[in-house]
Amino acid sequence: MADESQKWVLLVTARTPTNIAVIKYWGKRDEKLILPVNDSISVTLDPDHLCTTTTVAVSPTFDHDRMWLNGKEISLSGGRFQSCLRELRSRAGDVEDKEKGIKISKEDWGKLHIHIASYNNFPTAAGLASSAAGLACFVFSLAKLMNVNEDQSKLSAIARQGSGSACRSLYGGFVKWIMGKEENGSDSVAVQLADEKHWDELVIIVAVVSSRQKETSSTSGMRETVETSLLLQHRAKEVVPKRILKMEEAIRNRDFASFAQLTCADSNQFHAVCLDTSPPIFYMNDTSHRIISLVEKWNRAEGTPQVAYTFDAGPNAVMIAHNRKVAGLLLQRLLYHFPPNTDADLSSYIVGDKSILQDAGLEGLKDVEALPPPPEIKNNIPSQKSRGDVSYFICTRPGKGPVYVSDESHALLNPETGLPK
Amino acid sequence: MADESQKWVLLVTARTPTNIAVIKYWGKRDEKLILPVNDSISVTLDPDHLCTTTTVAVSPTFDHDRMWLNGKEISLSGGRFQSCLRELRSRAGDVEDKEKGIKISKEDWGKLHIHIASYNNFPTAAGLASSAAGLACFVFSLAKLMNVNEDQSKLSAIARQGSGSACRSLYGGFVKWIMGKEENGSDSVAVQLADEKHWDELVIIVAVVSSRQKETSSTSGMRETVETSLLLQHRAKEVVPKRILKMEEAIRNRDFASFAQLTCADSNQFHAVCLDTSPPIFYMNDTSHRIISLVEKWNRAEGTPQVAYTFDAGPNAVMIAHNRKVAGLLLQRLLYHFPPNTDADLSSYIVGDKSILQDAGLEGLKDVEALPPPPEIKNNIPSQKSRGDVSYFICTRPGKGPVYVSDESHALLNPETGLPK
Repeated sequence: MADESQKWVLLVTARTPTNIAVIKYWGKRDEKLILPVNDSISVTLDPDHLCTTTTVAVSPTFDHDRMWLNGKEISLSGGRFQSCLRELRSRAGDVEDKEKGIKISKEDWGKLHIHIASYNNFPTAAGLASSAAGLACFVFSLAKLMNVNEDQSKLSAIARQGSGSACRSLYGGFVKWIMGKEENGSDSVAVQLADEKHWDELVIIVAVVSSRQKETSSTSGMRETVETSLLLQHRAKEVVPKRILKMEEAIRNRDFASFAQLTCADSNQFHAVCLDTSPPIFYMNDTSHRIISLVEKWNRAEGTPQVAYTFDAGPNAVMIAHNRKVAGLLLQRLLYHFPPNTDADLSSYIVGDKSILQDAGLEGLKDVEALPPPPEIKNNIPSQKSRGDVSYFICTRPGKGPVYVSDESHALLNPETGLPK
Repeated sequence: MADESQKWVLLVTARTPTNIAVIKYWGKRDEKLILPVNDSISVTLDPDHLCTTTTVAVSPTFDHDRMWLNGKEISLSGGRFQSCLRELRSRAGDVEDKEKGIKISKEDWGKLHIHIASYNNFPTAAGLASSAAGLACFVFSLAKLMNVNEDQSKLSAIARQGSGSACRSLYGGFVKWIMGKEENGSDSVAVQLADEKHWDELVIIVAVVSSRQKETSSTSGMRETVETSLLLQHRAKEVVPKRILKMEEAIRNRDFASFAQLTCADSNQFHAVCLDTSPPIFYMNDTSHRIISLVEKWNRAEGTPQVAYTFDAGPNAVMIAHNRKVAGLLLQRLLYHFPPNTDADLSSYIVGDKSILQDAGLEGLKDVEALPPPPEIKNNIPSQKSRGDVSYFICTRPGKGPVYVSDESHALLNPETGLPK
């Protein structure tokens, strides 16, 4: 083991994206190993707009494992972290940094303690899959620190044990989580279907919806669905396997009409089985419903889908537009129905890739106020405007997978002390 | 045929209840004959609080069929009325009223015209199964006028062709609509499981929920579900048949815990298949969800169900309380969460059987304002009050089936002219 008198700190920093499922994961067949009842498919979101950055550190001076999330120390005792840590420690390898004079042998990892600092570049509580990105980053960065010699797919199986959907955040682009057959979960891994360049015209707009409802956590929610829904097994065994094949084909062929139809139908069916749970689980609210209605109405008016929508375990809408032009038209519609408060700043109401805003000809609040009703509602009474029902919008796109950040100035832990900067 | 120079008008008046399904009807296997994809079970609501009154008249002076609903003339050309009229005319019998000197032979009914006036003692547009009560009353009163010699069950098959759930309004108490097997629908009839005296401690409270959403009609909604939901067939074939048996047993044994569990689960599953429709159908809104949450939380706190809830094709909640004491406690909770506007009159906010209000110790608005938070939410932050989200509450109970009203002073048509009074 390294000499305890040495004051070295070894650091690794990584950045990992969030992902949004287009064929949903809902229901575990094994609670402990986190093995799902069906395959799922996701799109990785551009980490420039939504990602977790994590720095992990090891030092002989650390006397216990510690973790900070967005600057605040949190407990590492939860099963999700411990499962991942156990898996990683058992696979850790020898590490040598001659320059710093550090030598850690495989066996040392059982005794050494680690520090972890994690930061989300988006609100953690907003229901934007922060745990998926977080656990993926946790595993990805520790695997590098501990010299875990496993391919990305094996790492995904470790991340899966921290948070199911985290396994899909280990790849960019379009990712499939294969449910697997093995009892030990060894074949329940993520694989990349296509990278983010395969279908790079897609634009993603996330509506962060205000909510006063306390939400059911996805962990307990899916347990209750498995225990009480009489529709879930039919979905998992009969509906999803066919949808997975169709979705893979739609992605392969960049067939937006099929992609949108499957994405919307599967989001709705996931929320249907939540409602079929006892007691019922509601993740979408009236604002979510209004967003669905406006997209459905527009898609129907155009005769072919322009935009797909999908909702995770919360009221936020994730909308996937066919291309930049459609995204601009979508943004006009969203801002027509959900204008910002009159004293708001448009640049804090639309975040992420703001160039979509310029494409849509929306330079400021004045342009938003001047938006005409979209043609598909023209014959109806202009619908009520819903100021304040959406907190803000994030414009983004499909993005790449995890990366290591070599520049130590971006580390979240001090390289001298191993404590948050 | 009766002498055309005679100016006689023959009248029949009847009163028919609404009903609320506790195992839901959703989806037709035959659109024209209105044959459902599964059996359903309903509770008939007390006609003193929710019913349709209909007067039908025949006279040689009428030159075409006419109908008035709530005083306003409406078209009778719709398929639903025409199907019922055709069936009734084909079964009409000889009618003789010696006192008035009226004689109508079986064959005359093909040439004679009728007038119909119908009145709901509750708001028609409030989504309270007005079409079920209305069509049932239409058939029930015309059958008497035309001397249709069929039993109640055969009449239910005629009413079914006007509006599916209307067949269940031909009986009081607890009613089952048997889906039947015959292609011509002859065995798709309603039967009474138990009359209203069988389980007379139940109390029903309807929350009429304010909505700004335009709702999908149940006719087109269920068609779209049949065409697009991948869960409906599984519900109809695998889930409902078992539930029907359990529900019949729960009603037979007055087993409230089972009754409530089945009622809530089936309401939620019906809304789940609506959500699984493309485009998705939302009948419940945030207020509906809050009512479900408050009932579920209370039921859980008590350890055994106190109240069942069920929602039809709209946001209104129908709550069934185990007995009067529970109904009083339910009303306290509903008024705590959904108080009337401060300038409102409590007696127009709680309508129907107001004695529940007195049982609950609520004499006026002051008592409502003084309500403490229910014990099951005590440890939480007192939840936000939702003034205005509920329009009013109706207190009622299971009730009896259709009756003829012999007192001609209650007729809605003038016995001299056959026109609305």
